[in-house]
Amino acid sequence: MAGRLLCRSVGVLQLSRDVPLLFASRCCSHTEPEPLTVTRQSNGIRRIILNNAKKRNALSLSMLESLRENIRTGADCDHLRVIIISGLCLGNRRVCKTFQQSFAFSATGPVFSSGHDLKELTSSQGREHHAKVFNTCTEVMTLIQDVPVPVIAMVNGVATAAGCQLVASCDIVVATDKSTFATPGVNVGLFCSTPAVAIGRAVPRKVAMEMLFTGSPISAHDALLHGLISKVVPEERLEEETLAIAQRICRTSRPVVALGKATFQRQMAQGRDAAYATASKVMVDNLAMRDGQEGIRAFIEKRRPVWSHEAGKTHD
Amino acid sequence: MAGRLLCRSVGVLQLSRDVPLLFASRCCSHTEPEPLTVTRQSNGIRRIILNNAKKRNALSLSMLESLRENIRTGADCDHLRVIIISGLCLGNRRVCKTFQQSFAFSATGPVFSSGHDLKELTSSQGREHHAKVFNTCTEVMTLIQDVPVPVIAMVNGVATAAGCQLVASCDIVVATDKSTFATPGVNVGLFCSTPAVAIGRAVPRKVAMEMLFTGSPISAHDALLHGLISKVVPEERLEEETLAIAQRICRTSRPVVALGKATFQRQMAQGRDAAYATASKVMVDNLAMRDGQEGIRAFIEKRRPVWSHEAGKTHD
Amino acid sequence: MAGRLLCRSVGVLQLSRDVPLLFASRCCSHTEPEPLTVTRQSNGIRRIILNNAKKRNALSLSMLESLRENIRTGADCDHLRVIIISGLCLGNRRVCKTFQQSFAFSATGPVFSSGHDLKELTSSQGREHHAKVFNTCTEVMTLIQDVPVPVIAMVNGVATAAGCQLVASCDIVVATDKSTFATPGVNVGLFCSTPAVAIGRAVPRKVAMEMLFTGSPISAHDALLHGLISKVVPEERLEEETLAIAQRICRTSRPVVALGKATFQRQMAQGRDAAYATASKVMVDNLAMRDGQEGIRAFIEKRRPVWSHEAGKTHD
Repeated sequence: MAGRLLCRSVGVLQLSRDVPLLFASRCCSHTEPEPLTVTRQSNGIRRIILNNAKKRNALSLSMLESLRENIRTGADCDHLRVIIISGLCLGNRRVCKTFQQSFAFSATGPVFSSGHDLKELTSSQGREHHAKVFNTCTEVMTLIQDVPVPVIAMVNGVATAAGCQLVASCDIVVATDKSTFATPGVNVGLFCSTPAVAIGRAVPRKVAMEMLFTGSPISAHDALLHGLISKVVPEERLEEETLAIAQRICRTSRPVVALGKATFQRQMAQGRDAAYATASKVMVDNLAMRDGQEGIRAFIEKRRPVWSHEAGKTHD
Repeated sequence: MAGRLLCRSVGVLQLSRDVPLLFASRCCSHTEPEPLTVTRQSNGIRRIILNNAKKRNALSLSMLESLRENIRTGADCDHLRVIIISGLCLGNRRVCKTFQQSFAFSATGPVFSSGHDLKELTSSQGREHHAKVFNTCTEVMTLIQDVPVPVIAMVNGVATAAGCQLVASCDIVVATDKSTFATPGVNVGLFCSTPAVAIGRAVPRKVAMEMLFTGSPISAHDALLHGLISKVVPEERLEEETLAIAQRICRTSRPVVALGKATFQRQMAQGRDAAYATASKVMVDNLAMRDGQEGIRAFIEKRRPVWSHEAGKTHD
Repeated sequence: MAGRLLCRSVGVLQLSRDVPLLFASRCCSHTEPEPLTVTRQSNGIRRIILNNAKKRNALSLSMLESLRENIRTGADCDHLRVIIISGLCLGNRRVCKTFQQSFAFSATGPVFSSGHDLKELTSSQGREHHAKVFNTCTEVMTLIQDVPVPVIAMVNGVATAAGCQLVASCDIVVATDKSTFATPGVNVGLFCSTPAVAIGRAVPRKVAMEMLFTGSPISAHDALLHGLISKVVPEERLEEETLAIAQRICRTSRPVVALGKATFQRQMAQGRDAAYATASKVMVDNLAMRDGQEGIRAFIEKRRPVWSHEAGKTHD
């Protein structure tokens, strides 16, 4: 219901051309003066900005719950077409610098996310709390893959541990050439086993294992070579290039993309023949959708398609 | 029976040194003035040339049926050692240019294959016809992987949608540096879900997803980096380099390659331990083959092996 | 028991700073004047050196049994932290050269391993012996992945067939820029079906298939691009770079690494959701380990952790 309400308000907001604040989460974090994430939506593009530079955008339980909420809310609403997750790109550098000495992993310049908040993982919180943290993290990571719109990570800076898992879990990743990616948990006695689920499915095994065993960061260039990220750009073009991809997605049919994304996840978990059976049936269903037929017709008639964005089938 | 006949005739043809026309398919396509594919076989190398430049080598149902026939016929015959699938490399450029405006996807220069013929996928053909198209396409793609000889794609130009799936399905791909690869179905409202089965198993997931969600083409260079293709060469060396690989395969033992190819497909679908059980048994069987023992003996005796190409086991 | 004895002796040896000879295997090979492998252990780093340059470090049954023993012995002992497998890097080149003409595959310069000893695979040995060779090979390759410490291959030169499988099976691979990797079995009538199990899981399928069908070697550079190896270095820096990685692993907690390695192998064989269930539980268990809590505390207190290397859980 929240989703439907949101849906309507976004509809209104889209009439103006600026990028309005949609919701700023303070979820489960009453002591934070600033919202943990800032979320805006405009013209189908939802921006979720990790907003805790002081803690290097640590994926604390609150941050994870905030992310989960911000991804899930209104995900089925037609007005949402694509989600971009990023750190706060500019500003806050000074705050960041004063904190960087306390990080064993790595630390110069901007940060995407430094992974779990280790202060939440001491023995004083206890096993149940630890389990809650990792289960919530898993929910966020799988939600990103299961939500019916593409999720883009826009990365400028360090992405470590669960922060690297977040990168690996997104559908598309655009990163600046100064970004680095690491799973350094082994250095603090906490092997990055959950990040390894996402990273081990994104890059070749030997790349994953070296990252996991040594904790050494890899450059954006190497991350691109090995398939962890989709594109490397100079810092000054990060926003522009990411938005270009998002806008490209906005020009397609929402239910077609939703069907395609869900099918990709499903068939990749199957053997080849089962995967083809799944996908072949989906192609026929896709053609029976209103936008499937509109697309074909527009192509034949050499005109731009006009999408209905309706998920239902045609009746012809 | 057709296969056996073919087998015999090819045997004769191999005595001459030229490259004779083997069969030109007009399969299910009585209205076409030209055959959809042109197939020649000589010295163990079968060339299947997609021959419908006017339609940008669209994988129409007729084209798919023609391909299936041309791959399957005589596939078990000893005289066949390797299949090369290509577009018509030179000529026909002018025809191509006049048609290119009608293609939303991409379009300059030569084409390998533009994927399904969208005119066959309108609602007027109906669900059953659509299903037949995708099922036939799946048959071709899996046949390429299951046929007992290696299949090489020789690519010069654009390979999109099911054309890109065809590339991803071949065992080896040699492409010119001007070739591009794309899954732009999302732009015409038909998400490339079946191409994604082959492409998602060839390249890292994030590479596949960006191609699928954006429809943007990737260069031959990027396709090489990500494992979609095997080799990039300048246009003028495409034939030579492709034939060199084909001839290299011709110098090996046919049943050894057949066993190896089938085993690779089988074990890759299994878990590690089951895969090793499968492959270890196959190694022992391979050694029991006449050509397995001939190869070992020739190696020890420091001479070239003389293959029998017989699949049966030795009796010692 | 052998393991525990070894453990104690290694403990003593570690007090001195030199690299003592630990055990030199002559396992099942009474006719060899030299040990097939030379194994030394110091400061947690076990070096296993393939020591049969005359036979190009062929993975004969004796060599495989020797490797298995040298990996397995004392693998559960706290003093072992990482294993490095290499050929004899310097010297013995002349011996190598005189033999290289007899190798059809490839052969200039140093060698890592040329794979199975084909003289053991003639029909005169018989099917049972062949089966024993491949089963022992599988045991070695899977042992490398299942042993509780990381295994690094340090490669300078040619790695072919089962030698390439050995490379693909190690967790981390550092290789010189003159190293090459090939699966040329098809040229001697013995398709590299068992190497394909490891290689097909390390590199993209099309890369694996081209290697398997053509037998052509790939360069260290291409091996790096495709994920077969982890790092390429100039020959003069091979030892230094490999030891740096090994020492980095030595600075981490042994049971944390053991848990992480085992979990990686386990979850990678599962579907995504099962993998997350496995890994999330492991993260909680890891935090309950003494070294898990020590690492977190040290991080918060901004000091270096002091590992207990005890696998047991804490009681708080």
